[in-house]
Amino acid sequence: MVSQLSNTDREQKLNPLLRASSDDGKTGGWSMVKGRDAIAKTFVFDNFNQAFSFMTSVALKAEKMDHHPEWFNVYNRVEITLSTHDCQGLSIRDVELASYIDLVASR
Amino acid sequence: MVSQLSNTDREQKLNPLLRASSDDGKTGGWSMVKGRDAIAKTFVFDNFNQAFSFMTSVALKAEKMDHHPEWFNVYNRVEITLSTHDCQGLSIRDVELASYIDLVASR
Repeated sequence: MVSQLSNTDREQKLNPLLRASSDDGKTGGWSMVKGRDAIAKTFVFDNFNQAFSFMTSVALKAEKMDHHPEWFNVYNRVEITLSTHDCQGLSIRDVELASYIDLVASR
Repeated sequence: MVSQLSNTDREQKLNPLLRASSDDGKTGGWSMVKGRDAIAKTFVFDNFNQAFSFMTSVALKAEKMDHHPEWFNVYNRVEITLSTHDCQGLSIRDVELASYIDLVASR
């Protein structure tokens, strides 16, 4: 059973994701979702092909982790929210998936 | 330039999509979106693998048509909204894409 992030984990592992995004806008820049223990980030690509290719990479990783995003897409925009159903809040799985998502987006 | 559906098209082509869904819930059952000239439908699958496979089929068709959905996914659920940006409302492209989506979902 996965558990919610401890305060130490939030400081050391979650906070770097919440920092201002990097110059290319691809890492960092996640934000807490109002009223939920969840994080969210919006990615904008050049077109739908790039946006859906990104989603496909994330989907394969999510399925492998058995940890799935909530996400919305229209054309070149992908809005992703991460939280862990099993512990009703943020867990280490969200940190891992967010880091992977930033990695894919930065390619 | 694509134009909004005529009243005749709405009666003959849109209405069948808005009828009660079939017994398997896979065709029909689209509904008008409140406050927009758009249609929406929610699909529920057995798991994420099936949901994302469905999304991938729809994405390939959408890219080929150069007509893209607005959609939200979490785990086994896919919520799709269709409307045509170029004419600020429903066009024949939405009818075509909705019909394709129902076809894929019924496989």
